[in-house]
Amino acid sequence: MKKILILMELSSGQKEKLEIAGAGSMLTFSSPDRVSEEEIQAANVIIGLPRAEMIKASENLELLQLESAGADAYIVPGVLNGKTVLTNATGAYSQAVAEHAFALTLMLQKKLHLYRDEQRAARWRDRGTVSSLRGATVAVVGLGDIGGYYARLVKNMGAYVIGVKRRPSSCPECVDELALTDELDRVLPRADVIMSVLPNTAATSHIYTGDRFRLMKNSAIFINCGRGNAVSADVLYKALSEGQIAAAGIDVAETEPLPEDSPLWSLENLMITPHISGSHHLPETVDRIVDICAENLQAFLNGGKLKNVVDIRTGYKT
Amino acid sequence: MKKILILMELSSGQKEKLEIAGAGSMLTFSSPDRVSEEEIQAANVIIGLPRAEMIKASENLELLQLESAGADAYIVPGVLNGKTVLTNATGAYSQAVAEHAFALTLMLQKKLHLYRDEQRAARWRDRGTVSSLRGATVAVVGLGDIGGYYARLVKNMGAYVIGVKRRPSSCPECVDELALTDELDRVLPRADVIMSVLPNTAATSHIYTGDRFRLMKNSAIFINCGRGNAVSADVLYKALSEGQIAAAGIDVAETEPLPEDSPLWSLENLMITPHISGSHHLPETVDRIVDICAENLQAFLNGGKLKNVVDIRTGYKT
Repeated sequence: MKKILILMELSSGQKEKLEIAGAGSMLTFSSPDRVSEEEIQAANVIIGLPRAEMIKASENLELLQLESAGADAYIVPGVLNGKTVLTNATGAYSQAVAEHAFALTLMLQKKLHLYRDEQRAARWRDRGTVSSLRGATVAVVGLGDIGGYYARLVKNMGAYVIGVKRRPSSCPECVDELALTDELDRVLPRADVIMSVLPNTAATSHIYTGDRFRLMKNSAIFINCGRGNAVSADVLYKALSEGQIAAAGIDVAETEPLPEDSPLWSLENLMITPHISGSHHLPETVDRIVDICAENLQAFLNGGKLKNVVDIRTGYKT
Repeated sequence: MKKILILMELSSGQKEKLEIAGAGSMLTFSSPDRVSEEEIQAANVIIGLPRAEMIKASENLELLQLESAGADAYIVPGVLNGKTVLTNATGAYSQAVAEHAFALTLMLQKKLHLYRDEQRAARWRDRGTVSSLRGATVAVVGLGDIGGYYARLVKNMGAYVIGVKRRPSSCPECVDELALTDELDRVLPRADVIMSVLPNTAATSHIYTGDRFRLMKNSAIFINCGRGNAVSADVLYKALSEGQIAAAGIDVAETEPLPEDSPLWSLENLMITPHISGSHHLPETVDRIVDICAENLQAFLNGGKLKNVVDIRTGYKT
């Protein structure tokens, strides 16, 4: 009998969904904090986000179904044995993260961050020109589920969307134009908004260099809702404090939590949120995660096809 | 020869548009501050926003073409003589105001105002649950050009839209359901977001009473991008400080500028912008205003049909 270990906080309805999917196997519900290393080592399937250091390439572990989209911690060599299949919850977070990135975009375009600062000083003060997505060129860097969702939102506002992705494909309906990551330097100078939602991989580390910020328009707005390693804190500080771009909104930082003494906190033209866009703050998100986990658990137990399989070498969905 | 007085700040291209429209008449370009009372009194057409107290029901004034959508100051008895035709620039501001209201809505749903406050204190702190327009019920109170534009934006996000208007009509495409202003009390309890964009008239003054805020959901978000008289500062303060609704975003206040000692400034769950959504901050807005003015000037001089005629008794477009 397969041992299924579930490390998520769930409602009774959500638990039931997993119990139905896992019928005939032994299900244990716990949490990453409460679970013992013995339970981790005995499990054939783990659903959730176990502490990577407790897995120790367990030979019993056949499937690790993450509740997150990012798989950074589990693709580090030595965490999983070569036979463990790794699946993520890509797709469950699309709406939440894309809407958050979209809200950040509009907030910065309409200068609402500056008006909040004025409000705190009880000042009724006009901050001048704003911009619009209508007629704007938006580069969406990372065209997975989240990028595609965001692309549709900005397209609905009247933007021209350039999707930037690693591998050539036909142009999806959600974008007007497709470019490869290798062509980023030709895309950046054209964009009024750059929305980046790249995973943490070797190839994306510090991809936004100082040179690349200098390629952007002075009026550009940069949004990062992917991973903090895409841009170093120093480079971002320089780009914003020297006016290489107009403003930025980040939900992720190179070091998280962002250190209290980081100069980024006090930049007027930077909006920071504490890596919450992909959390479970939108009730719809958890339901979607549970659906993915239940579907994959059932497929695993019945020899069906798993979805959202992650390539351990790249961190991307295969 | 008709005397046309233009009191707007314009680019040379925009001036040229008006010169072409006013060909054969005497055009004078000035500003509300520089213009003399003699010039005002002599003019047959004024384009812009003259000081109401300088008009004195001038018998020469045949057409007053406002550059604003609101006509509050000019429908006061004694400002215009009974024969002056009053036209406004309704439509020119739709995109700017609707996008601003939309940005305020998303900001409050995603708690970006709270994250800005946290940022100012250098705090990486999770503020919990957010909401989405997807599946939300949005009441758009005032279904003119701006309301219609906003309705389309929220509908694109997946919202169910109830349009609230004064007079019965067929249901426009931009909304899912239509209600009359008289039925407001039946609409408010259903709405997750109430976006109000009412003009300043006797009928809209303090329309959002304390009772009406108590009818709203505790989780409701209230947006006012119409006129400040729709809700008294006291009622709004009470609704927000007592948690009758979750949050509000206002671009207008009962008294403008909002007095420095107003308790509204310090409400965490209120976002204030200083009546700038309908300003000329979006470059597209001024172009559209000039187009309306040029079209109406030409129509006036050639006996054509004027657009955007305001009923001096109601302040609404006829």
